[in-house]
Amino acid sequence: MNAMKNLKLCSLEGRPLPTCIEVGKARIGENFTIMAGPCSVETMKQTMETAIAVREAGADILRGGVFKPRTSPYDFQGLGLEGLRILRKAANEVEMPIVTEVIDPRDIPWVAEYADILQIGTRNMQNFSLLKEAGRSYRPVLLKRGMHSTIAEWLNCAEYILAEGNPNVILCERGIRTFEGSTRNTLDLSAIPNVQRLTHLPVIVDPSHATGRRELIEPMSLAALAAGADGLEIEVHACPDEALCDGAQSLTPEMFKDLMKKLRYLDNALKSYEE
Amino acid sequence: MNAMKNLKLCSLEGRPLPTCIEVGKARIGENFTIMAGPCSVETMKQTMETAIAVREAGADILRGGVFKPRTSPYDFQGLGLEGLRILRKAANEVEMPIVTEVIDPRDIPWVAEYADILQIGTRNMQNFSLLKEAGRSYRPVLLKRGMHSTIAEWLNCAEYILAEGNPNVILCERGIRTFEGSTRNTLDLSAIPNVQRLTHLPVIVDPSHATGRRELIEPMSLAALAAGADGLEIEVHACPDEALCDGAQSLTPEMFKDLMKKLRYLDNALKSYEE
Amino acid sequence: MNAMKNLKLCSLEGRPLPTCIEVGKARIGENFTIMAGPCSVETMKQTMETAIAVREAGADILRGGVFKPRTSPYDFQGLGLEGLRILRKAANEVEMPIVTEVIDPRDIPWVAEYADILQIGTRNMQNFSLLKEAGRSYRPVLLKRGMHSTIAEWLNCAEYILAEGNPNVILCERGIRTFEGSTRNTLDLSAIPNVQRLTHLPVIVDPSHATGRRELIEPMSLAALAAGADGLEIEVHACPDEALCDGAQSLTPEMFKDLMKKLRYLDNALKSYEE
Amino acid sequence: MNAMKNLKLCSLEGRPLPTCIEVGKARIGENFTIMAGPCSVETMKQTMETAIAVREAGADILRGGVFKPRTSPYDFQGLGLEGLRILRKAANEVEMPIVTEVIDPRDIPWVAEYADILQIGTRNMQNFSLLKEAGRSYRPVLLKRGMHSTIAEWLNCAEYILAEGNPNVILCERGIRTFEGSTRNTLDLSAIPNVQRLTHLPVIVDPSHATGRRELIEPMSLAALAAGADGLEIEVHACPDEALCDGAQSLTPEMFKDLMKKLRYLDNALKSYEE
Repeated sequence: MNAMKNLKLCSLEGRPLPTCIEVGKARIGENFTIMAGPCSVETMKQTMETAIAVREAGADILRGGVFKPRTSPYDFQGLGLEGLRILRKAANEVEMPIVTEVIDPRDIPWVAEYADILQIGTRNMQNFSLLKEAGRSYRPVLLKRGMHSTIAEWLNCAEYILAEGNPNVILCERGIRTFEGSTRNTLDLSAIPNVQRLTHLPVIVDPSHATGRRELIEPMSLAALAAGADGLEIEVHACPDEALCDGAQSLTPEMFKDLMKKLRYLDNALKSYEE
Repeated sequence: MNAMKNLKLCSLEGRPLPTCIEVGKARIGENFTIMAGPCSVETMKQTMETAIAVREAGADILRGGVFKPRTSPYDFQGLGLEGLRILRKAANEVEMPIVTEVIDPRDIPWVAEYADILQIGTRNMQNFSLLKEAGRSYRPVLLKRGMHSTIAEWLNCAEYILAEGNPNVILCERGIRTFEGSTRNTLDLSAIPNVQRLTHLPVIVDPSHATGRRELIEPMSLAALAAGADGLEIEVHACPDEALCDGAQSLTPEMFKDLMKKLRYLDNALKSYEE
Repeated sequence: MNAMKNLKLCSLEGRPLPTCIEVGKARIGENFTIMAGPCSVETMKQTMETAIAVREAGADILRGGVFKPRTSPYDFQGLGLEGLRILRKAANEVEMPIVTEVIDPRDIPWVAEYADILQIGTRNMQNFSLLKEAGRSYRPVLLKRGMHSTIAEWLNCAEYILAEGNPNVILCERGIRTFEGSTRNTLDLSAIPNVQRLTHLPVIVDPSHATGRRELIEPMSLAALAAGADGLEIEVHACPDEALCDGAQSLTPEMFKDLMKKLRYLDNALKSYEE
Repeated sequence: MNAMKNLKLCSLEGRPLPTCIEVGKARIGENFTIMAGPCSVETMKQTMETAIAVREAGADILRGGVFKPRTSPYDFQGLGLEGLRILRKAANEVEMPIVTEVIDPRDIPWVAEYADILQIGTRNMQNFSLLKEAGRSYRPVLLKRGMHSTIAEWLNCAEYILAEGNPNVILCERGIRTFEGSTRNTLDLSAIPNVQRLTHLPVIVDPSHATGRRELIEPMSLAALAAGADGLEIEVHACPDEALCDGAQSLTPEMFKDLMKKLRYLDNALKSYEE
């Protein structure tokens, strides 16, 4: 764990109190925060329907991808600027902030005009050009853990962003790659209390990409909350079976509503205990 | 996942209702069950002190190792029969059933006379001679997941035991081996809802061996409960710093007491929600 | 790598010269040694045909399994004693020593009467009862690396055998489990020079289980030789398509003959260079 | 392996003959090609000394990094344009083509003016913006396998480059991340024959980053050649102990000279056999 010794700005030694990042009405790091929405922005209708559904269920931030890092060059790559406009319009309609992934340092300045939070995905965690550009942006950054990355490497990538002057980084555990093939990745929930003993940055969990299976999202969401996570990022699609990307891991609006109810109940129960 | 197609006795298709295994007053698979105690039985004093402490805190079953599978032949290998007598005596004093690991098929008949549950450890998950002998025993078997094993392989090992005529198998997720080195293993909590969709057998979690770090045990125990686990196996040592084995991952009696209180609270809260 | 500090008998510090293990005419650790034969002994005809074929191609030792550690209890488990008699008879016919896997400590005394080398498989690498019993046997032991095991753990298992008084251990790298699914395991050839810098014991390679694919065995065998391995263990079956176990990774006698010719050529070329 | 079905341009089905990429006098895919040089370009003196040494030993292409993707933002990040000029000057002096890593899509147009081959590193294998920009460049691209990437994902990344119109991609196996900690990564030599059965693109091996240990580079280089690789990329430093990056895995000029001699001998021996 030599890589830990270079951590300065993100470490608890430099700043022992938790960072709270305010985005719209959300206070990430203070209140349990839910980011939800479709994997990809596909059409205005699909995005608007999903936005209304997640808003009604109580989500805090609308997620949606417009640049999709896909395994094959022949798969759907996202709608780009057009998608971003759709996402912004839907978000405004329901009065939610948005989080969207960036994959090219050249896009950050103009994406930052539309998006409230810039997401850096698992494949780009060590894309240092992207990290530095995100560090120069005025927007909070959601930094996903590399599927092949140690805790130390992940925190060093947060340090890259902080070192450029941007103090608002949200960590996101989304599963690591192992030999187990019945889930898309292996969700490492021990990463939550592990990083909380090292950094003041908030840390959330993405159970959708971690498991890749709709039916495992509720138990993993509850477990993440019980483990002390600061929030969740969850894929919801108005019609998962018609999704252009990752349909099998998207919740229906109905499932998401049930999950939100249970999360709120559990969050309150855990808070009551602490008092 | 071809290996799934051979599952018969342990699969939900053959028996859709959950198995409940009764050991003393514990009903594993029905009530959230806590197995706690020292990694190794070392002395009567240490074992008795720990037994009293975990009993007072509300543990259901006393754990303790007398045959220790150690990396090096020159490390402490456990007290064997002498240890088993100590463990039994301490357990009788506090009126608890005991669970203890077996590592040799030749030992099963006589260990079964002392122990209420036979544990098969992660290194022996695919020790098929041991599985078959455990399957011929009249005692319930706690089967840990191999640190390198898929869900399918794990369930097939349970099938080995069931196929010999012993229906009482408790599965135990204890972390898998990955590239992450800041924890001893990577606890795969998604394995809980994953196996529950495949088998009627109860499944518990061992956060002590999974994390190897005392300070991560409470959040991982709460997360396991929230994920739907049927119980926990936790290492507790009256004086962790003097432990002959795995001291760094053992809770003190005081920490264990606090954890039990929080687990009971959370268990009740989750049950209230379902009603 | 703390686990390294406990190595005594197998370490180069205690004994700087390479161990040479003589079995029949083979001198393992001195000459490049080929162990070949069927995954499982199935019938006298199949075993005899394969034995003749590998002998003619120049193999040194006949391999064949009679106790098969299979994922499912309903798969073919091997012929046991009957298989061992078949294997011995075939081996005597072609005047070859035999290597066969043991999976139960109770079997070692009688298997040792038939077999020249006792093999401990990847799933049993840390079956310490089996290791100790093998250490009390007068037969050389072929110790496969656990598919989940570090170099340090593997050498400690050799130490278990040596510590019981048996100095004749042959290490066998057979691939480790990773996320890559297009091969059965990931063959770690760097393990060869790695262990040679730590131990005086000979180390061979099993490309059949490592890759699980017939067409990858020749390049991996040549690579193992070039990396400095002391030999190979290869699956050959007279009719791979009819094999009861692991047919896809078995060479035909014709393929094996071609491979042997190429290996001999390369072995000579490498030796000429050193001189 | 669904991801395989999207492969068109890089697959053997579309083009059964091996691709040969000519760079200076090197013919990658036809002759065994050695790329060697320092991890980082540090000074003119160090670069020139190393260039002369690797040239004299018979290397074909000079490697050297000027943008270093480092775990920590506070580590040496490379000399950038200044380094590129040094590298070009040294290469011209010894009449060698150069290969250098790019990490930002914005740099590709101007780096392509200096470098003969653009390298895409393991952390950027799925940096799709970078892949697309490299695909629009007129320079050959050396594409390293992601340390967490399957064979299928790697080939799909090559497909990204080919789909933009650049047919000259060289694959480079450099080790994958596993639980084994005694080497930096686990070199997967089976990837060589594995990809050769899927693609017409040449594939080389980087034993330096794979093992991270100087003493393992010779055996792994010989093994790569025997496995059928089309070449090697090796780190050589005039004074490894003074290197600003990765000194422990750099060969001295003397070691590199010995290795080159042995490689040439083995290459000739293998060719003679085929004839």
